[in-house]
Amino acid sequence: MSPLVSSCISKFEAILGKEAVSTKESIRAQYSKDEAASFRPHLPSVVLLPTSVEQISAVVRVCNEQKIPIVPFGTGTGLEGGSVSLMDGVCISALNIEGGICELNEADFDVAVRPSVTRKQLNDHIRNTGLFFPVDPGADASLCGMCATSASGTNAVRYGTMKENVRNLEVVLADGSVLHTRGKGTRTRKSAAGYNLTELFIGSEGTLGIITKAVLRLHPRPQAQAVALCHFPTVADAVNSVVETLQMAVPVARIEFLDDVQVAACNVYSKLSLAEQPTIALEFHGQNENEVAEQAKFVEVCTNNRGSAFEWAVELEEMEKLWAARHNAYYAALAMRTGAVGFTTDVCVPISKLAETIVQTKEDLENLSLKGAIVGHVGDGNFHVILPVFEENCEEMKIVRAFSDRLVRRALSANGTCTGEHGIGVGKIPYLVEEFGPIGVQIMKNIKRALDPNGIMNPGKVFV
Amino acid sequence: MSPLVSSCISKFEAILGKEAVSTKESIRAQYSKDEAASFRPHLPSVVLLPTSVEQISAVVRVCNEQKIPIVPFGTGTGLEGGSVSLMDGVCISALNIEGGICELNEADFDVAVRPSVTRKQLNDHIRNTGLFFPVDPGADASLCGMCATSASGTNAVRYGTMKENVRNLEVVLADGSVLHTRGKGTRTRKSAAGYNLTELFIGSEGTLGIITKAVLRLHPRPQAQAVALCHFPTVADAVNSVVETLQMAVPVARIEFLDDVQVAACNVYSKLSLAEQPTIALEFHGQNENEVAEQAKFVEVCTNNRGSAFEWAVELEEMEKLWAARHNAYYAALAMRTGAVGFTTDVCVPISKLAETIVQTKEDLENLSLKGAIVGHVGDGNFHVILPVFEENCEEMKIVRAFSDRLVRRALSANGTCTGEHGIGVGKIPYLVEEFGPIGVQIMKNIKRALDPNGIMNPGKVFV
Repeated sequence: MSPLVSSCISKFEAILGKEAVSTKESIRAQYSKDEAASFRPHLPSVVLLPTSVEQISAVVRVCNEQKIPIVPFGTGTGLEGGSVSLMDGVCISALNIEGGICELNEADFDVAVRPSVTRKQLNDHIRNTGLFFPVDPGADASLCGMCATSASGTNAVRYGTMKENVRNLEVVLADGSVLHTRGKGTRTRKSAAGYNLTELFIGSEGTLGIITKAVLRLHPRPQAQAVALCHFPTVADAVNSVVETLQMAVPVARIEFLDDVQVAACNVYSKLSLAEQPTIALEFHGQNENEVAEQAKFVEVCTNNRGSAFEWAVELEEMEKLWAARHNAYYAALAMRTGAVGFTTDVCVPISKLAETIVQTKEDLENLSLKGAIVGHVGDGNFHVILPVFEENCEEMKIVRAFSDRLVRRALSANGTCTGEHGIGVGKIPYLVEEFGPIGVQIMKNIKRALDPNGIMNPGKVFV
Repeated sequence: MSPLVSSCISKFEAILGKEAVSTKESIRAQYSKDEAASFRPHLPSVVLLPTSVEQISAVVRVCNEQKIPIVPFGTGTGLEGGSVSLMDGVCISALNIEGGICELNEADFDVAVRPSVTRKQLNDHIRNTGLFFPVDPGADASLCGMCATSASGTNAVRYGTMKENVRNLEVVLADGSVLHTRGKGTRTRKSAAGYNLTELFIGSEGTLGIITKAVLRLHPRPQAQAVALCHFPTVADAVNSVVETLQMAVPVARIEFLDDVQVAACNVYSKLSLAEQPTIALEFHGQNENEVAEQAKFVEVCTNNRGSAFEWAVELEEMEKLWAARHNAYYAALAMRTGAVGFTTDVCVPISKLAETIVQTKEDLENLSLKGAIVGHVGDGNFHVILPVFEENCEEMKIVRAFSDRLVRRALSANGTCTGEHGIGVGKIPYLVEEFGPIGVQIMKNIKRALDPNGIMNPGKVFV
């Protein structure tokens, strides 16, 4: 441990109590990594487990005075190393802040949550209200962490990403002060007052402050829903069907693509027997069965694009089984190679460029003899290639990184972005400059410096 | 003219040509005021009419070197004095930048526009594409100006405000550099790359830079639509119907409230014969008539809340006549007092607090014997009181300001905001601190300083 951090341990203990300050190696290891195994963690010097916003504020103040780096940590479900430690410093988990789900306003469709609350916990809690929180990145992540990462997922095509579903944030800033991004208590559907600070913190990946409360927008739970699968002879047919469906303004709730490799992997992993072809999974939400039928009717565009007859699931159990398989796509892809870890890409392009981008990406995989599964939130133009890799194999990793690099450049040249939903973290830092240009990144750095002049908040993430 | 500005005139002329640099009093007067007559303008020292982004960049650089204040000017349709001049300085209109509507991507539902393009011009231009831009603040404003003001209006309940409908912005910053808020060319539906700079500029009211291009999100034009009017015995009945309709997840496209005073004013001004009661106007959008009928069916909640039978308009002409009357509500309210000018409020509250907030506001009007019409985008909890006033009457203005002050405090104590869509401008500056608290405003000021260290961009607006 660096002498600087060491000299502050007694201060942390005075603020939090001895039990909430841990220098044990096993605990530090637990708080050092996220889902993406490919970021070699540096253990944080100490892990702090505060139970109140006041405590977080007090320890952050100590760190700011001493210029000690802070890594905020949530459920550790990120995929780009946003919460790994890169240097000696303090890891702060906000998951023990008391409060959980607070301030549920059913009539206004909003709820406030503390960092301990995950999306599944929230949806279980409000199950009987007729409301739900739609953003679903797959992992059962902390909702405050989802704000920090700008998460989205399968439902975003209809309900938007975190950015569209947060009304207010409470944030502990680098100097320990507590900011309410829209003022304390404000939770209107819209406002034109002052700068949009809420959106500034969404996707800031812990570099501007620690999110300690989020006021979320809820949606009416659909009274009727149905899931359909459709298989296609080619990737282009499948993707073109998605594009045409969106153009017909069908408000599909989910529209997910799985390539032949991914379907085969899911068949093995989730014991299914789907046709191993490019496949689209659609979910329709409505307030009654007529409405769902009305939407589903429009999807004859799939047949026009040589799609198979729809395989329908209307029973809840059957639908949940299919989406569980989709959510496990990552693990299914890893299971294609025993003992492998995951390397995941995350580009997003305008939907008109989606078919050619995926086709070129598959060609590249084939040319390189790489085994990769493609799965994506194609209604948003966002798709992932999941590559099961052996990190020790330097030659293979070189090929994988070159493949990923070409994929990002392909997306950028198609008016796309290097990350649709995983964030920049550590892994995408070089691409941020390519995507935004030097002026854009400079403005981000100027904002960072204005809010965190000592650079203590999650240093080495997003940009360097 | 201040010697400082005077010394730069030749530089401006060298950059723009003599015709684009105007010191004529009539021109300066034209660029000195917005729709709200109650802000006594100070004429800008000079009006600049650049025709390219490069020219804007060059003149801004001169101003930055000399620390000359800049007021960006659009169509002048704002209501809070955001584009009035407060001191000697330069007014820059970006309306002459060449380009107009550029880069229409029908398949991706997006289009790029220069500041000269108004929302009606855009919608006329894309009429045959099957797409439309939904944000409709009433006035035929510049779309880039609508970004700067964070405009919304009648359609926001279904389609969102500007914040939800902009994919990228080109901005000339205070040092003359040109920022693309999401990188040059990026126009995906979503991204998790870096800070959300686009949202930072939306609603920044010219204080962080001059918006010179906006990439907007378009929506499929509804194939079927219908408008219905419903009258209620009380304000509470009308508003409760709105709340219950939203809770049933009916995706109404517009849900507007007019009080008895406003309906009476519209009857006179727009030659209608509507029942002079609290009234709701609803618009339904669907891809076919079944879908519209399905939505409309749900609105039996109005009958349960003692609403009248629906008066339907399905013919385009009839619908347009009704919405024209709604859009002219402001002028109709002014016409209640010959020669009066308008004083408009703009609070927004959570919908559960809407009925009591409006009822208390009407009581306050009655107690003060003030004539004010209430009209609002009640699906978003946002309503306006339009007061026709004589500004010379100091005693009356004192009462009006005290009324407005109480209304803002009432909204803030109901978890609301002082401005739903008009912005802070000059008129709402004191309330920004009340709403956000000192830390929130300080963070905004820190960001402002980081982007505009010399404080030249629209000084005296949003905060001081």
